[in-house]
Amino acid sequence: MRRKSLEKDACPVARSLEAVGDAWSVLIVREAFAGKRRFGEFERSLRVAKNILAVRLRKLVARGVLEQVPASDGSVHQEYMLTEKGRGLYLVLMAIRQWGEGCGGKTESVLIDRRDRKPVKPLAFHAHDGRELGPGGMELVPASDA
Amino acid sequence: MRRKSLEKDACPVARSLEAVGDAWSVLIVREAFAGKRRFGEFERSLRVAKNILAVRLRKLVARGVLEQVPASDGSVHQEYMLTEKGRGLYLVLMAIRQWGEGCGGKTESVLIDRRDRKPVKPLAFHAHDGRELGPGGMELVPASDA
Repeated sequence: MRRKSLEKDACPVARSLEAVGDAWSVLIVREAFAGKRRFGEFERSLRVAKNILAVRLRKLVARGVLEQVPASDGSVHQEYMLTEKGRGLYLVLMAIRQWGEGCGGKTESVLIDRRDRKPVKPLAFHAHDGRELGPGGMELVPASDA
Repeated sequence: MRRKSLEKDACPVARSLEAVGDAWSVLIVREAFAGKRRFGEFERSLRVAKNILAVRLRKLVARGVLEQVPASDGSVHQEYMLTEKGRGLYLVLMAIRQWGEGCGGKTESVLIDRRDRKPVKPLAFHAHDGRELGPGGMELVPASDA
């Protein structure tokens, strides 16, 4: 069964998932952040079948997450680069990462601040005055009430 | 083609996606945060086919995101509730939401601080001393170096 498109859904979570709502797409974006640009690079690092990769890349381009550009070395290859919209997924990837770390399993890398080389604080919500907020301290309300 | 399991992958992004790596699973979690508990409630609010919903719920339970509990009204129904691990997905959902909002489209709800009813700050990384950090200010390094 084909799912109805979520592209015009009122909920921003649903709209986002229309662009990157499956494991492969998110992993392709992760590889793009790690500097991968070519079809063959994605294929090797993800060990994904060509047809699956081709479909996902096409969708990520259609949704404006990646863009196709001529190869940086002047060869005939096409390369895929994150658009500005795509780079906005950094926070999503890091939130997924943080959740994965919190669920146990070994952690092989740490996110650090380039300036002082210290680990960054865990991602959290803050009130306008800087107080840290947990899920229980927040509420989603209609935009007209805020 | 069946994808290799990512459950034991070294990368916490990949491990997380094994639990909630598709649009339906994330939307089920969104509905659970909104208070939905029963099969029929998820089915109606997501307009999803019974077989798809059943598979996703089973997977979310197997991965420890949801747990099955007897119905709160004492009826024979089973209910699905977020586990502690599942509630940890709040930040992931909100990061996805924030990305969706940044990509345009109308926003019908706003996340506010319950205490002062003001919108919360956009989610962002902070250094140990409180400086806000963009993607360019951070780096993933091997855990042994940090």
